[in-house]
Amino acid sequence: MISVEEALARILAHITPLAPVRVPLSEADGLVLAEDVISVENIPPFANSAMDGFALRSQDSQADNGQPARLQVIGSIPAGYVAEHAIEPGTAMRIMTGAPVPAGADAVIQVELTHSEGRESAWVEILQEVAPGNNIRPAGDDIQQGQKVLTQGTEIRGWEIGLLATLGYATVPVIRRPRVAILGTGDEIIDVDEALQPGKIRNSNSYLLEAAIRHAGGEPHRLGVARDTVESLREKFSAALSHDLIITSGGVSVGDFDLVKDIMREQGQVDFWRINMRPGKPVAFGQIGGVPLLGLPGNPVSSAVTFQLFGCPVIRKLLGHTRLVKPQVEVVVEDGVQDRVMRRHYVRAHVAWNGTAFIAQTTGPQGSHIMTSLLNANALLIVPEGGVEIHPGERTQAMMLDWPEVNL
Amino acid sequence: MISVEEALARILAHITPLAPVRVPLSEADGLVLAEDVISVENIPPFANSAMDGFALRSQDSQADNGQPARLQVIGSIPAGYVAEHAIEPGTAMRIMTGAPVPAGADAVIQVELTHSEGRESAWVEILQEVAPGNNIRPAGDDIQQGQKVLTQGTEIRGWEIGLLATLGYATVPVIRRPRVAILGTGDEIIDVDEALQPGKIRNSNSYLLEAAIRHAGGEPHRLGVARDTVESLREKFSAALSHDLIITSGGVSVGDFDLVKDIMREQGQVDFWRINMRPGKPVAFGQIGGVPLLGLPGNPVSSAVTFQLFGCPVIRKLLGHTRLVKPQVEVVVEDGVQDRVMRRHYVRAHVAWNGTAFIAQTTGPQGSHIMTSLLNANALLIVPEGGVEIHPGERTQAMMLDWPEVNL
Repeated sequence: MISVEEALARILAHITPLAPVRVPLSEADGLVLAEDVISVENIPPFANSAMDGFALRSQDSQADNGQPARLQVIGSIPAGYVAEHAIEPGTAMRIMTGAPVPAGADAVIQVELTHSEGRESAWVEILQEVAPGNNIRPAGDDIQQGQKVLTQGTEIRGWEIGLLATLGYATVPVIRRPRVAILGTGDEIIDVDEALQPGKIRNSNSYLLEAAIRHAGGEPHRLGVARDTVESLREKFSAALSHDLIITSGGVSVGDFDLVKDIMREQGQVDFWRINMRPGKPVAFGQIGGVPLLGLPGNPVSSAVTFQLFGCPVIRKLLGHTRLVKPQVEVVVEDGVQDRVMRRHYVRAHVAWNGTAFIAQTTGPQGSHIMTSLLNANALLIVPEGGVEIHPGERTQAMMLDWPEVNL
Repeated sequence: MISVEEALARILAHITPLAPVRVPLSEADGLVLAEDVISVENIPPFANSAMDGFALRSQDSQADNGQPARLQVIGSIPAGYVAEHAIEPGTAMRIMTGAPVPAGADAVIQVELTHSEGRESAWVEILQEVAPGNNIRPAGDDIQQGQKVLTQGTEIRGWEIGLLATLGYATVPVIRRPRVAILGTGDEIIDVDEALQPGKIRNSNSYLLEAAIRHAGGEPHRLGVARDTVESLREKFSAALSHDLIITSGGVSVGDFDLVKDIMREQGQVDFWRINMRPGKPVAFGQIGGVPLLGLPGNPVSSAVTFQLFGCPVIRKLLGHTRLVKPQVEVVVEDGVQDRVMRRHYVRAHVAWNGTAFIAQTTGPQGSHIMTSLLNANALLIVPEGGVEIHPGERTQAMMLDWPEVNL
């Protein structure tokens, strides 16, 4: 048996990020930037007002013998428009937030610190002295022309999209989203809308994996369920070859009908391991026709947990991410973990911060067929190899499933 | 000025969850369950084997004078099939993981603890005594018929989808996803693919909000940018009326061209507030033609932060969530916050757990036009009202933007 870490390292060694493409800005969300973004403009592109008020020469704002300065209002500058003439000594212009500061002005005074006869007033009294630069956002105050703003490898989310829009990126160079084929296997599997028959269970793994792949950033494609025959598997696999990654569930154990690895041997290459973990023991990895294939176990919980440990990092590496795995924190296990398991034990648990520590509570029986204990779990407690018992109140590491990924 | 908490409470008082609909299982991801899910079946539906091995009567597994028990192999049960006859004393059947345990058997011994002549062997030797129930997963071990498995209001994610599939939910009763209209305003705004002209800036807010609305669970629709005229705004608003929520950016301050609230007064109802926060001061909330409208400020950072504080909870409440807001934790502010602001100050920062505390580092200048300090921020430090300075190493609360929402 090999360790989880060794299995993951072996798998990732075979995965390289997909090719860069340009996508419309609206579709870049969640993808990874394939090039550095260097601004060809100053942002803001021009000095503009931070307030609704009056643009003026700061030296004209000084009171004279206790009398507020009174300036002639020679125009009005809405946002989006440029003043037609400059500010001369003794004059001011009404100016809106975001409007370009007119030539000659070196300050803006906000409307609340002025007195006038309203919108059409021909004059304005300046009730407070202002310093040069007051309420002016200089050109380039946020971004200088030539500045590197975003680095290749950055994940694009809402805020990055806002910035890319500001810089004029109608399309964005990104690593494309991997197309992931999902293939169930097993004569016992019927589809979700079928009535149960003796010996049969419904296909839950394909639907669970579909959602999990989408969360990881992949584009999932359910290809149905292969029967436990070489012919059925060959047919399904041939449909899977147009994808960037194939994920199977079931068929990778040592039983007579565990044929997935046989097809991999026939049509590609297979690494097959027993991994020193529970749930999830047998995992196959390799390729078919050059397409990487990750074979997960068939038990629903084993499939869910091994996808989290191995499938997510693979999809994220294909997407160009460098942060591939969920972070770990030390937690206090309030109810303890009594099952002593020789393999490393990933225990479904709910972890909450209580103000001084992360407190974990396990979510119920941990058998690999007990799906209900996935519900409400936001973490996997990591109980070390070797039959370790965690007494109530003792500490262990937990993998935080709702937190953003970190570097391996 | 009202507090952030009061503004949010006033807004949410006007929002009710949308109507329930049934969607295909694959589309339920991220939505909220509209009904309790009660299982009409036992899961697993039948007692089945946890291992590849042999089904037998446990009492037949006892060695006799040191000689392992030798049983006649009378059949083989692959997963998905039901044995045609029962186990009689002195007999066993080969059985695969997940296959139904045949009548008469009360235990399964894993293949590794047996000896035989291989796949076709007519006999098997039992190398270890097994107890009744060994390696058998009883019917209903995970879920009992009649058991409530998921509660109305639960967010459906991958694991819930796996469970719903197991229970035969080809379609799922959920609260439907809100359709959210995004409307930019302002004569200064040009589209992302246009070259800059004097006085103009590109539309970043609509694209940023589009991604943020999608992350919050809404279905965003960009309706373009209204000019600063009543006519243009009327036209855009009439196109927005077919949505569940309208979000505008800009046009809600007190300037001459801030017309959004005028149209709201004309066609619906408006609450307009100055909120005691920075960035983001003026926020409009009300309705037009019965559709709730949230008017955000036009500065990119103000728009992003007020969407986080007010827009996300609104969309989540429409979706039927009860956990509406991001959680807060106490952090150590390594570099401190020197700007003293009278309003409550939301400071963009990066927070990381260092093993004993959450350490925050601010992300740069905090002006509401400085978009670059949104990058790399995963938290908003909350600096209390009243001109408080946070010295380096002092503590404050931080809103954790990457963590799952909690109850208000």
